[in-house]
Amino acid sequence: MSLWLSGIGVSRGIAIGRAQKLHSDELEIPEYTLAAADVEGEVVRFYGAQRRAKEQLREVRARIPLGTPGDIAAFIDTHLLMMDDRSITDATVARIRSDRSNAEVALQKARDALIAVFNQMEDPYLRTRRDDVEHVCDRILRVLLKSERQLTLKSDAITEPTVILSDDITPADIILLAQQSVVAFVTEYGGPLSHTAILARSLGIPAVVGLHNARRLVREGEQLIVDGESGHVLADPEVLATAFYRRRQQQQVQHRKRLTQLRDMPAESVDGIRVHLHANIELPEDAAVASANGAEGVGLYRTEFLFMNRKGQPSEDEQYDAYSRVVSAVKGPITIRTLDLGADKQVDSGRSHGPTPNNPALGLRAIRLCLKDQEMFRTQVRALLRAAHHGQMKIMLPMISNLAEFRQAAAIIESCREELRQQGLVIASPPIGAMIEVPAAAIAASMIARHARFFSIGTNDLIQYTLAIDRVDDEVNYLYDPLHPAVLQLVRLTIQAGAAAGIDVSMCGEMAGDPRYTRLLLGLGLTEFSMHPTSLLEVKRVVRESSIGDLRSKVSQLLDRMITQAEGADELEALLSAGS
Amino acid sequence: MSLWLSGIGVSRGIAIGRAQKLHSDELEIPEYTLAAADVEGEVVRFYGAQRRAKEQLREVRARIPLGTPGDIAAFIDTHLLMMDDRSITDATVARIRSDRSNAEVALQKARDALIAVFNQMEDPYLRTRRDDVEHVCDRILRVLLKSERQLTLKSDAITEPTVILSDDITPADIILLAQQSVVAFVTEYGGPLSHTAILARSLGIPAVVGLHNARRLVREGEQLIVDGESGHVLADPEVLATAFYRRRQQQQVQHRKRLTQLRDMPAESVDGIRVHLHANIELPEDAAVASANGAEGVGLYRTEFLFMNRKGQPSEDEQYDAYSRVVSAVKGPITIRTLDLGADKQVDSGRSHGPTPNNPALGLRAIRLCLKDQEMFRTQVRALLRAAHHGQMKIMLPMISNLAEFRQAAAIIESCREELRQQGLVIASPPIGAMIEVPAAAIAASMIARHARFFSIGTNDLIQYTLAIDRVDDEVNYLYDPLHPAVLQLVRLTIQAGAAAGIDVSMCGEMAGDPRYTRLLLGLGLTEFSMHPTSLLEVKRVVRESSIGDLRSKVSQLLDRMITQAEGADELEALLSAGS
Repeated sequence: MSLWLSGIGVSRGIAIGRAQKLHSDELEIPEYTLAAADVEGEVVRFYGAQRRAKEQLREVRARIPLGTPGDIAAFIDTHLLMMDDRSITDATVARIRSDRSNAEVALQKARDALIAVFNQMEDPYLRTRRDDVEHVCDRILRVLLKSERQLTLKSDAITEPTVILSDDITPADIILLAQQSVVAFVTEYGGPLSHTAILARSLGIPAVVGLHNARRLVREGEQLIVDGESGHVLADPEVLATAFYRRRQQQQVQHRKRLTQLRDMPAESVDGIRVHLHANIELPEDAAVASANGAEGVGLYRTEFLFMNRKGQPSEDEQYDAYSRVVSAVKGPITIRTLDLGADKQVDSGRSHGPTPNNPALGLRAIRLCLKDQEMFRTQVRALLRAAHHGQMKIMLPMISNLAEFRQAAAIIESCREELRQQGLVIASPPIGAMIEVPAAAIAASMIARHARFFSIGTNDLIQYTLAIDRVDDEVNYLYDPLHPAVLQLVRLTIQAGAAAGIDVSMCGEMAGDPRYTRLLLGLGLTEFSMHPTSLLEVKRVVRESSIGDLRSKVSQLLDRMITQAEGADELEALLSAGS
Repeated sequence: MSLWLSGIGVSRGIAIGRAQKLHSDELEIPEYTLAAADVEGEVVRFYGAQRRAKEQLREVRARIPLGTPGDIAAFIDTHLLMMDDRSITDATVARIRSDRSNAEVALQKARDALIAVFNQMEDPYLRTRRDDVEHVCDRILRVLLKSERQLTLKSDAITEPTVILSDDITPADIILLAQQSVVAFVTEYGGPLSHTAILARSLGIPAVVGLHNARRLVREGEQLIVDGESGHVLADPEVLATAFYRRRQQQQVQHRKRLTQLRDMPAESVDGIRVHLHANIELPEDAAVASANGAEGVGLYRTEFLFMNRKGQPSEDEQYDAYSRVVSAVKGPITIRTLDLGADKQVDSGRSHGPTPNNPALGLRAIRLCLKDQEMFRTQVRALLRAAHHGQMKIMLPMISNLAEFRQAAAIIESCREELRQQGLVIASPPIGAMIEVPAAAIAASMIARHARFFSIGTNDLIQYTLAIDRVDDEVNYLYDPLHPAVLQLVRLTIQAGAAAGIDVSMCGEMAGDPRYTRLLLGLGLTEFSMHPTSLLEVKRVVRESSIGDLRSKVSQLLDRMITQAEGADELEALLSAGS
């Protein structure tokens, strides 16, 4: 009897294979008090286990195939760094000494204290760091207990396509399994931002997460069909269902092949309008993946990664190295966003920014924090300016809400440039632009356009503020709506203001990378998109099949009607489905 | 030698008088353990003290002169209710019994636990409830310790104008002192939302708060000049300074007299355009103050007061009584706002709304909460509909962000009406309107105008969301700017959308009551204002001195230039100062 299950599809594609369940054997942690004489020996035992755990991770890292996206190795690097984190190591050692606890118990307590901190964080991305802490501590614990996880697949699974079912899964395990014959991942926990989701997308392996009780409902070795887009998992399918999905799978493979052929073709519409498609990246290594997907440049390079999971802040030289590497690696223009951190994020600034605010999303973040902590900002700006001549760098300021902020930040950049010039350091003069993600900036975009050299619309925050909802708040995320006429109106206003001032307008929020919205955005006048590299070819396909002139007049009228007549939802729906 | 001091001016007017310091003698709290046999006796002693404290408050309440605004008695009523609050009484009695503590210590601990809760609250208004807890517990403690506060003024102060200097001051004390010869209050703590500030404004007594060390810097009996607008306090002034301030004081008195003459005159501009000025009120009793200041109606009656400081929620009948009273008391239209509560506010709903969100301002509040907790909403709606026939009621829905929300809420109201009709209860059909305070609602105001019968612009939240700042967050409140061109643009859009649809547009946020902004708002096309009753006459004066036709063309051009040319700040400044 076949069985339909439903989870959250987080990595597209259809996979067919046999179920293999991974069970995370509950670790039994012994608890005992040490004799005074044994304390230092226990400390040595702990450090030995920590070293061994690091070696294991380095082995995993060495096995990552060439050409794998940079963010995959980055997950392992993060874990390696975390293994040395004082809040884990020093805290454990201190407990061994003060409580005379055995290393396992001391480590567990250090872990729980750290997890409590992460649980309070606002940023969904940072909250997933909690999982890192768990994975890292689990690995050291297993070394201490000599209970290493078995991760080779069963013998028949070596030849046969396998679907892994587990509660959750570590980045290191995903990398190891992806090299065997695993065709899909199904996990019981996690969401679209979980590591499993991010890694599976990067590796191009279909995945469904948050499918509660998956291992109970599915029998070991049972045939499974996994649809990583809809989130459906079909167990023990009938012959017809299998045939249906095999055909869809083939269609997808062919579709992907056709997409790959688009890589070197221009993103030009049927009526000859040229559109520019750029990539959002996090790490210098991602530049290769971007160009492998036909990106003409990078529309958003986030710099927060350099500042996280570390003691202190990166020096000017360290930042210079990172920026130089990425700017050199990217063919075409690269837009670097200055620090977008908030009071709630984990940056060790060496000073406190006061108590946690009641509404961090409406608090001291991004450019606001940079204008307050100017030393941090100037260090970054100097590093950027020094690195600029390695390529076509643009500097983007996040969370601009008024003209004064933009001008103040631009003046600081100019003063850094002057300083560097006097020091005889040859430097370029990269254009400075504003990220449009606060409603005020979109509404008064014409005003800011008189001073900014370019705009990039950050839809994620723009939607949140415009609708006054926090989309990671489960109680209200049903209100998160990229298609709200007010959101579309702000996008249009920003594009029009940019056009009137003769500056480029890009979009780097999630909307830009969703092919369902491509026609709508083209119709609103957008000609520059920046997105996760894996979406580039699909969006290019839509662009090449569209007639932008027609879309512009159609969308413009439609939006006017939606706002003034409160109607047109059907046509909008039709426009969206035509794109996919 | 005269001395200039500077605090926060919170209640306008100039006062000249002699300093008298109030010292809150530190209470010495004895601590001892009771014999088992004495425990119940101590419980009786505690209840006795609580009863006596209530009697004292009732005596204060009885002495409030007729014609005093309702919010003054409300402060005392709140304290009376709080005296019976279980988190104070039951918690104290439980501690006496479990710890065998004396009543004083048990009460202190109950108080500290409660204060810890209030300290975590987001809403600045609710945070001031903390002070209530302190005042209430302090009063019971003093009865227990037989150490009542002395609050009669010194004998010479009976005839001479007196300025009170204190750390902070209870509502009950303010009422007692205001009946003696007190001409101003100066406190060392507190802000514009503190009780001292609110009560002083209501009583029309100048007040300066947050003047740290005021009692150290000023000598007892010294001559003081207090400017409750600028926040300046001048001690031991020279003859010329005194003469100058006496003249200003006289001018103010005359100004106020002239304002009072405006009470029954229409709010009509020089060029004959009729403007409507309404009052924002909290309690049925405030209706009298509103009409004493010439209000033509009530533009905002907040219903949260009914739900706070109590166990459980008010029943339909209890709400019906309150709404009937206020609707009958108000001459002219009265706009009642349905519940504007959030997950962080203290309402005993008998159920939990999940964990505290990371960004409560962007969370489940106001209409969102009402659409989720429909039982609570329907109870309020039924009470409103039943009370509607007592006057000209309008129902206003807060935090509307899209059309679906408005229509869903309107459908619920219609279904309640149908239900009541079938029960044979005669009911009216009050117009239903939307509060425009989310940027999306302002941007798409035309869309919502097709279904709403009126709009009211809530500038406080609208500004916060448009600029993505939390104005109670000290780190970013410098960005709170009612004059940001984007804010003005949203106000204009909303007014235009209302005009095009033929529905009334009012404004009930703080901007509406600030006479500096009156000309600007008239220029943006606003013809209906709602504000704290004490601002009504001043705003009416500005309206009667303005030529609205001129202002409209001027402001419209100015705003266009601000947005498109990023200039015009000087003219805006000139426009503002012309009004005052």
